[in-house]
Amino acid sequence: MKIVRPTLVLNKTVCQQNIELMVEKAKRHHLRFRPHFKTHQSLEIGHWFRNLGVKHITVSSVSMAAFFAKDGWNDITIAMPFNIHETEGLNELLTDNNINIIVDNTLTIEHLKEKLTGEIGLFIKISTGYNRSGISSISHNRIDSILEAAEKNKKISFKGFITHSGHTYSAGSRNEVQNIQFDTLQKMDQLKKTYLKRYPNLEISIGDTPSCSITENFRGVDEIRPGNFVFYDLVQHSIGACNIDDIAVRMHCPVVSKQPARNEIIVYGGAIHFSKDWLQNIDGKPLYGRIIITHNNERILLGPLSCLISLSQEHGILKVTSKEFKQINMGDIVEIIPVHSCLTAQSMGKYLTTKGEEIEMMKCY
Amino acid sequence: MKIVRPTLVLNKTVCQQNIELMVEKAKRHHLRFRPHFKTHQSLEIGHWFRNLGVKHITVSSVSMAAFFAKDGWNDITIAMPFNIHETEGLNELLTDNNINIIVDNTLTIEHLKEKLTGEIGLFIKISTGYNRSGISSISHNRIDSILEAAEKNKKISFKGFITHSGHTYSAGSRNEVQNIQFDTLQKMDQLKKTYLKRYPNLEISIGDTPSCSITENFRGVDEIRPGNFVFYDLVQHSIGACNIDDIAVRMHCPVVSKQPARNEIIVYGGAIHFSKDWLQNIDGKPLYGRIIITHNNERILLGPLSCLISLSQEHGILKVTSKEFKQINMGDIVEIIPVHSCLTAQSMGKYLTTKGEEIEMMKCY
Repeated sequence: MKIVRPTLVLNKTVCQQNIELMVEKAKRHHLRFRPHFKTHQSLEIGHWFRNLGVKHITVSSVSMAAFFAKDGWNDITIAMPFNIHETEGLNELLTDNNINIIVDNTLTIEHLKEKLTGEIGLFIKISTGYNRSGISSISHNRIDSILEAAEKNKKISFKGFITHSGHTYSAGSRNEVQNIQFDTLQKMDQLKKTYLKRYPNLEISIGDTPSCSITENFRGVDEIRPGNFVFYDLVQHSIGACNIDDIAVRMHCPVVSKQPARNEIIVYGGAIHFSKDWLQNIDGKPLYGRIIITHNNERILLGPLSCLISLSQEHGILKVTSKEFKQINMGDIVEIIPVHSCLTAQSMGKYLTTKGEEIEMMKCY
Repeated sequence: MKIVRPTLVLNKTVCQQNIELMVEKAKRHHLRFRPHFKTHQSLEIGHWFRNLGVKHITVSSVSMAAFFAKDGWNDITIAMPFNIHETEGLNELLTDNNINIIVDNTLTIEHLKEKLTGEIGLFIKISTGYNRSGISSISHNRIDSILEAAEKNKKISFKGFITHSGHTYSAGSRNEVQNIQFDTLQKMDQLKKTYLKRYPNLEISIGDTPSCSITENFRGVDEIRPGNFVFYDLVQHSIGACNIDDIAVRMHCPVVSKQPARNEIIVYGGAIHFSKDWLQNIDGKPLYGRIIITHNNERILLGPLSCLISLSQEHGILKVTSKEFKQINMGDIVEIIPVHSCLTAQSMGKYLTTKGEEIEMMKCY
């Protein structure tokens, strides 16, 4: 494998193992597995899921739904509050596919009333504490007005309640994730009990990678939609959702400058390659990636304080110890474990597997 | 102009005015203008420079050099410490173009000795305080060893010293930028004096947008290489390098959810569109973008505390006042001024001009 410039390298074995483990976990808990494909955005990686029997997927845009629908995925949830400007694109999908949209207001339903040309499934978005989009689980008035508006339209079938406990991403421990998950399940279960009489087939769909990786409690849940687990990353590792060895992607970056006065190594690999998410390191400073070097033919994961400390547009700065500084040479290719694999994959737009295969991604906006 | 999904809208008039002003400033100070094209990465925008007589450009990678060389730009500086793995790509460029590379170590020169098939210009990278790549201006030993290595190779002509005062990007005021620029010029001038006898044609090249926009002091400088000024952004505005009206790009984002309990508006437009740079707002919290709404057919720039406060992969959260909350409706398209236009442009990969023309960008990695 010849690396010339910043390259996102994917370990296929690790990735397929991550997929397998989540497929098995879903089976064990009798859950429908509807993985979020926004992390990888690749037809090839989609096939790895399909080979394990996965038939339902989640995406984050109408264009991403169209991309995967063309490849034979025909049961898709578009997990963004529906953007009414994309109704035409949605309609095009409805002829051949089962599409679910998510909504947290009546105006979207009113808009669709006149414009929808086919049948859709509707999930109402519930916020259980992440506080991005969605309705509080106790706001029955808002939920009822959406249901009322939906019932007037025969093309819309109410499927259930969907949530994304994104606040697990800032959890400090596995215990905290379990507490958030417990709270989410309480709220969703209460909703289910309230609405089950009127809608006996209603489902509960939850989604975040930390909860799906860490907990074994899925009481009342019908479907899970994690996405990031396919690669994992340093954020997931910091939460306790994965081990370092479970992280399937690494950026390979050439060393282009050495700064002996500061024990800093400059690599070709910047914000346009990694994007710019960071974690707080154990010394309180920002950490943009962990480093693996090859020394005497041995791959060595450096400690967390020897890390990618800064990203400008194309440059990355690695701060290392003086011993490590001597072990890294001009022209070396260092491996960097990304903080947030979804954004790094999106920035790079393609993968090179450790077996040397090139895998293309969709660019979906 | 119909906006359906997150779209990067470019005001051509403002952009061309930014270019014109910098062209004039360079002329006024008798400087060669070698704009950095990594900000826009577009052939079309390149032509706007060419139409004003610009003939020399700066890029940040061998592939970007190749992209612009094909369009007739044949005097190019590749302003990254040269990555020895791309020597083949460099050689391909040398047949028809004048290419300058930048170097801060002898190993790169040693490597090129055997591999170079054509002639190149060499700039030695000096660090005047930004502390990324480069050599301190007083490290004459390191500079001399590079010069010595270069002189052994007839294909390499030493052109001069190059620096990028990137520390102006975190300056708190125009005065601070002027102080940094003054310090940079002192250091570069000292170098020039030291080496001018040996190299009577040596040049000094400086580059950052804040210095080039704010100062009128270019003593001893032969060439300027700013890039960001073509669009400007909130970082430049916070430094005092531009007015809000000089910022030529805005992200247009559809409103997909309203959260009345928190006066928050959720837009379709996230980290994959903006990238993830932020500024510290006047209340100490992160600011990811400023908001312009259209109310009663009037465009209103909201105050800095009503801003884009958070970005996840596709979602952005706007925090506004309760009055503004009522003025923004589901389905509205809000305009957001980006914090860092280079990264936002890179993430989006294309522009729509306010006149409705589509402009493609290169994707260069």
